[in-house]
Amino acid sequence: MGGDRSVESKEWYMAAYATEGVPSSDHLKMRSVTLSVGVDDIPDGHVAVEIIWISVDPYLRTKMCGRKDGLDMPPFQLNQAISSVGIGKVISSRDKNYEEGDNVLSFAIPVAEFCIIPSGMITSKIEPPKGITLPHYLSCFGVAGFAAWVGIEMIGEAKAGANVFISAAAGGVGMVAGQLAKLKGCRVIGSAGSDEKIKLLKEEFGYDDAFNYKKEKDFDAALSKYFPEGIDLYLDNVGGKMLEAVLNHVNHHARIPLCGMISQYNKDWHERDGIRNLLNLVGKEVRMEGFLLGSHLNRFVDFVKEMEGYLSQGKINFKHNIFNGIESFLEGFASMFSTSDNIGKPIIQLK
Amino acid sequence: MGGDRSVESKEWYMAAYATEGVPSSDHLKMRSVTLSVGVDDIPDGHVAVEIIWISVDPYLRTKMCGRKDGLDMPPFQLNQAISSVGIGKVISSRDKNYEEGDNVLSFAIPVAEFCIIPSGMITSKIEPPKGITLPHYLSCFGVAGFAAWVGIEMIGEAKAGANVFISAAAGGVGMVAGQLAKLKGCRVIGSAGSDEKIKLLKEEFGYDDAFNYKKEKDFDAALSKYFPEGIDLYLDNVGGKMLEAVLNHVNHHARIPLCGMISQYNKDWHERDGIRNLLNLVGKEVRMEGFLLGSHLNRFVDFVKEMEGYLSQGKINFKHNIFNGIESFLEGFASMFSTSDNIGKPIIQLK
Repeated sequence: MGGDRSVESKEWYMAAYATEGVPSSDHLKMRSVTLSVGVDDIPDGHVAVEIIWISVDPYLRTKMCGRKDGLDMPPFQLNQAISSVGIGKVISSRDKNYEEGDNVLSFAIPVAEFCIIPSGMITSKIEPPKGITLPHYLSCFGVAGFAAWVGIEMIGEAKAGANVFISAAAGGVGMVAGQLAKLKGCRVIGSAGSDEKIKLLKEEFGYDDAFNYKKEKDFDAALSKYFPEGIDLYLDNVGGKMLEAVLNHVNHHARIPLCGMISQYNKDWHERDGIRNLLNLVGKEVRMEGFLLGSHLNRFVDFVKEMEGYLSQGKINFKHNIFNGIESFLEGFASMFSTSDNIGKPIIQLK
Repeated sequence: MGGDRSVESKEWYMAAYATEGVPSSDHLKMRSVTLSVGVDDIPDGHVAVEIIWISVDPYLRTKMCGRKDGLDMPPFQLNQAISSVGIGKVISSRDKNYEEGDNVLSFAIPVAEFCIIPSGMITSKIEPPKGITLPHYLSCFGVAGFAAWVGIEMIGEAKAGANVFISAAAGGVGMVAGQLAKLKGCRVIGSAGSDEKIKLLKEEFGYDDAFNYKKEKDFDAALSKYFPEGIDLYLDNVGGKMLEAVLNHVNHHARIPLCGMISQYNKDWHERDGIRNLLNLVGKEVRMEGFLLGSHLNRFVDFVKEMEGYLSQGKINFKHNIFNGIESFLEGFASMFSTSDNIGKPIIQLK
């Protein structure tokens, strides 16, 4: 695409920080900007990209509160477009490594219809093999799948026969995590927030059993019932009261990889649920360990290789929850906090 | 000592469980029993022991509440003598491996003046080399010293240059832990509950600095002041509010070996301080891990060897807080919860 060319691009920006609660249209607003995306208009070493898929993940919440929250990530800047993991098509390039039509993945692409970015912000070109689609690179091969893999295999060191519990099991991470644990020979139980999700976990994602935490509200009783032999590995995606209940059911030398705490993100830390029974970590010699993906990128290739194998053999199922159009970003984002209607990994499809 | 011989032996027994608060004379009572300790009176495979030194350690508290508390140790039985780590002298033996006059160490000896125990309950004979005394086997070489070593060297993996924080630093564990961390080349700061202890930490135990948490009550501010570069390793002996404050100051990949939580033992777990900022473990990728000594006994020999080296070279100082007479057990025990007058590792000397 030569010469100059202007496009109208809608983008989401941070209008005001959301210190508490689910971020709304008071905090995230959409606007339209005009971009000159012709090859003569963009700076050297840059590419113009038409964005097609945007990943929606829980960690984004912590970047919307105006300070480094527990995840220690820099906040989005006020009045600037927010960013996420996304895939787009190059529409003009001033870098010889990229040409028009290339599909490219970036870990920090604006939540927008178009962008002009330094080519260094591109993580990789994507040419999906047969049977694998572009959105898979935002789910199984993306943040969610890699987090599941690091949590279950690296930090959790899942072993055959282990009793594994996964919260937010029908979420992007939980969905893959349970199947990975099953592939390792574990007994896997999940919790989620609707009967439809429970059905999905048992029927499509191979969980041995699962429970609806909105119905079985006494978590301690639920865990007694589902884990008569205790818990060896708990992949924590929610924190709070569920984490506390788990600590009353851990076996000796249990592992608790902390992936994230979606039940806690919408509160200031002073208001978060206090975990009162950490002494159990001593008596049971439990290792609780937080992790971020950036520290494990040296294993990303191993992960993709393993996951491609599983996918090509039909050993891993996955569901996407597709929202259509840039306008739907806020709805897709809010769906993560509304446990009942969030089935599958939320992804925004722009085109 | 041949023939029959009776002794009067005072012993402490569990009269009533203490579910909350510091156990008192309502819960622990002393009584006198008559024991036939002559060699013809004791069963085959047994020894009669006159107990000389009894160790007083925080974990005993958790055995006095009538259920398995967070440390997962079986409770003392009602109306039975309680037990602890202790050293005594064999006064008659029906086991050819032991003879009258041997000094023996047991990890579960009655808190009493005399006892008749199966020889299998003896951990080892003790013949201290020059410069090392029997009580050292209950402190530096005992539960406290070994806990410090496992916490700092094994679970904490202390590395030169690391910023190390130790709570209850003037207690039995903290005293050794700080010196071990210094020997590894760390910068070490401690907290304790009296100015006298702070002085001791800085002047005799080689801490780089220390603060009185009863005076510097804003733990967050104190840690900002003493750890401008953050905390890499926190050996937690207290739990509760101090642990929560530490989680706001941890560096990336910090380690938190959990040794015990003396600030929390006197409450039912529902009443314990809730830790609200565990999300920080995720963002900083912190490993928090509880440990018990039983799982590390395969390293006990390495530990003793290293510690004997340090002691013989004068590289480790240690203070005992000696209480005299079996009658003083309750006072010695209670001293652990009264932070200001507990200087040095409490030990009961019976003779």
